[in-house]
Amino acid sequence: MAIRVPKGFRLSGVHCGLKRDPSKEDLTLVISDVPAAAAGVYTQNLVYAAPVALDRQRTPSERIRAVVINSGNANACTGERGLKDAYEMARLAAQTCGAGPDQALVLSTGIIGAYLPMEKIARGIQAAAERLATDHETLVAAARGMLTTDTVHKLSGRTRTIGHREVQITGMAKGAAMMGPNMATMLALIVTDAPLDAAAAQNALSQATQDTFNCISVDGHMSTNDTVLLVANGAAGGPRLAGAELATFQGALVEVCEDLARAIPADGEGATHLITIELSGCASRSAALQIAKTIANSPLVKTAIHGADPNWGRIVSAAGYAGVPFDPQKVTLKVNGFLLYDAGAPAEFDAQAVSASIRNSRDTLIQMRMGEGSASVRFWTTDLTAEYIRLNADYHT
Amino acid sequence: MAIRVPKGFRLSGVHCGLKRDPSKEDLTLVISDVPAAAAGVYTQNLVYAAPVALDRQRTPSERIRAVVINSGNANACTGERGLKDAYEMARLAAQTCGAGPDQALVLSTGIIGAYLPMEKIARGIQAAAERLATDHETLVAAARGMLTTDTVHKLSGRTRTIGHREVQITGMAKGAAMMGPNMATMLALIVTDAPLDAAAAQNALSQATQDTFNCISVDGHMSTNDTVLLVANGAAGGPRLAGAELATFQGALVEVCEDLARAIPADGEGATHLITIELSGCASRSAALQIAKTIANSPLVKTAIHGADPNWGRIVSAAGYAGVPFDPQKVTLKVNGFLLYDAGAPAEFDAQAVSASIRNSRDTLIQMRMGEGSASVRFWTTDLTAEYIRLNADYHT
Repeated sequence: MAIRVPKGFRLSGVHCGLKRDPSKEDLTLVISDVPAAAAGVYTQNLVYAAPVALDRQRTPSERIRAVVINSGNANACTGERGLKDAYEMARLAAQTCGAGPDQALVLSTGIIGAYLPMEKIARGIQAAAERLATDHETLVAAARGMLTTDTVHKLSGRTRTIGHREVQITGMAKGAAMMGPNMATMLALIVTDAPLDAAAAQNALSQATQDTFNCISVDGHMSTNDTVLLVANGAAGGPRLAGAELATFQGALVEVCEDLARAIPADGEGATHLITIELSGCASRSAALQIAKTIANSPLVKTAIHGADPNWGRIVSAAGYAGVPFDPQKVTLKVNGFLLYDAGAPAEFDAQAVSASIRNSRDTLIQMRMGEGSASVRFWTTDLTAEYIRLNADYHT
Repeated sequence: MAIRVPKGFRLSGVHCGLKRDPSKEDLTLVISDVPAAAAGVYTQNLVYAAPVALDRQRTPSERIRAVVINSGNANACTGERGLKDAYEMARLAAQTCGAGPDQALVLSTGIIGAYLPMEKIARGIQAAAERLATDHETLVAAARGMLTTDTVHKLSGRTRTIGHREVQITGMAKGAAMMGPNMATMLALIVTDAPLDAAAAQNALSQATQDTFNCISVDGHMSTNDTVLLVANGAAGGPRLAGAELATFQGALVEVCEDLARAIPADGEGATHLITIELSGCASRSAALQIAKTIANSPLVKTAIHGADPNWGRIVSAAGYAGVPFDPQKVTLKVNGFLLYDAGAPAEFDAQAVSASIRNSRDTLIQMRMGEGSASVRFWTTDLTAEYIRLNADYHT
């Protein structure tokens, strides 16, 4: 079933000249017919882009009417002028629906250190405003407007009946490396017609990102622009969600976030494998996350998976330098269900069978169990290939 | 001038069958004619190899007579039997010079998770004991005995006149990735005829490694076997070094450590550039180190240098996620002397000239200045190339 646009939203994606290829959308506009609750989570990078500064200031909110997104230019490291441009971009987007200049949010992704070509942006916003629609083709165009080096657009949706009303959650995301060739960023925008107040929206989004967008990596390089926005306009009707209704909404929101989050490493630059790391038996969730992230970001683990090599030594030793205390004698490791390392010692296993299981599937499952407690985490990443090097080193030639 | 073996040491390197190629030495023996002070610094990995466990227990010491090193097998993740093997290896080495079983130290590097072939090791130690010498050719053979994927052996030496006596410091090291294809480790052994007590030796080594071996990375993957040993037998004569004499020794020791440390990323797997990162203006040395290390380990910085791309955005944004607070408006960045980023904003620069300067030299200098204080650090790393991927992913095919 095709993913629907939630009630009370209209959107579009157009080409305004930020990307060279005229067949590629580079500007997306999303309009809510009524003021909506909006929440955001942002990059932790000290060096953050102008749109992040703007959105951070404006969320959480209950007044948002428009979100405008551009690709091809990240408006990062652009100083005062960049900030002014971001505010102007928000004003132009808000104006298209008669809203105040502070009722819009902005997302940008693309090259760093270049000023936005504001004439193109202004024309693009105008063109996008004239094409606002709710059909599936337009939704895809909107999702494409945020892409940079991505090879596929990323959409996810869930429909839930909550208290006699039908609620729709629809999300779009972009990202293929934390930064691609001079490109930046993971972005996601999730819109819903569920009725939420600002605090509930922020809380729902912050919780949902913990186990989804904060559990992915491609190359471990945190961008200046990473942003996830949730906009909830209440057009599904009824009172604001609370209690069990809110919990149902939260479950569906996590599913959408997980779909989008997984889609990013699945489309990782040059990647041939999507690696899922399940880490369990830890003293705390943050310990589990730290170990999983350290394994995920080891170039030697990534290249081993690329080479279909059941190299448990690289995985276990990566865990060992994660900076989290654990007893190595209690570590057990499985790859694709095969037991490779058992209670601190190498297990007998059929290396050819494990290797074939890695080689023959795009998905690799690494399961590591510690003996420290009951906290666990799931983390997604990619392998590391010569194609990643080519994309990030040789793109200028 | 050829590097000398310090007085009172004899050494050798032989092939005993751990490596397939019979022209490659795989076992090194170093004997001090008299009991020597010995100090060690070791991997911080929770998963550490048997030789690390043994050496950690025995250093600092004033009784060491022998160091035995093997390549081809790291004796890591080998449990009780591995520990027993390491102790037996030490005993055999000590026996060759009539020393007690606890007067030897052991270094191992190579594949993880396999037991040492103790018969080969025993024969190798015997053969090495019969070839002990002090000539340059034998010193090179000894340095070669510790290599794995290294393409060149790594030796450094300094001679200093300290209080009317001539003191020699001679070091050998290995390492090309923190772990290569199933291989492990950075190892270094430094021998000197300077008279030092155990505490002074440990203090001198711990200090010297801070700015040298702890300031390098290839892929950021910390091995299970990393070890640096200093053995000082006092054969140069005279009283133990202290005060100004010790400071002179310390200066020369740092030079030897820096030579060896730089030689590791310079020989990094698949590397085409040795990148030196000079980070200054930080609130503390640990802050400077953390930022430098984060820049060094970013695959996007590494691939940019490989591609001769003056991509300041990748360098500045890597600093931004190092987890150290700083004011981005006070950051200044130079690459090969060209100013790319000035007080938080992109500078005007000739991109082609910067690119040519990167392309035309194996050495790249990244200088970043923060506005937080006066602490600084120098860090060495490699670029990231398709050849690294090939070495670490496709080696089994």
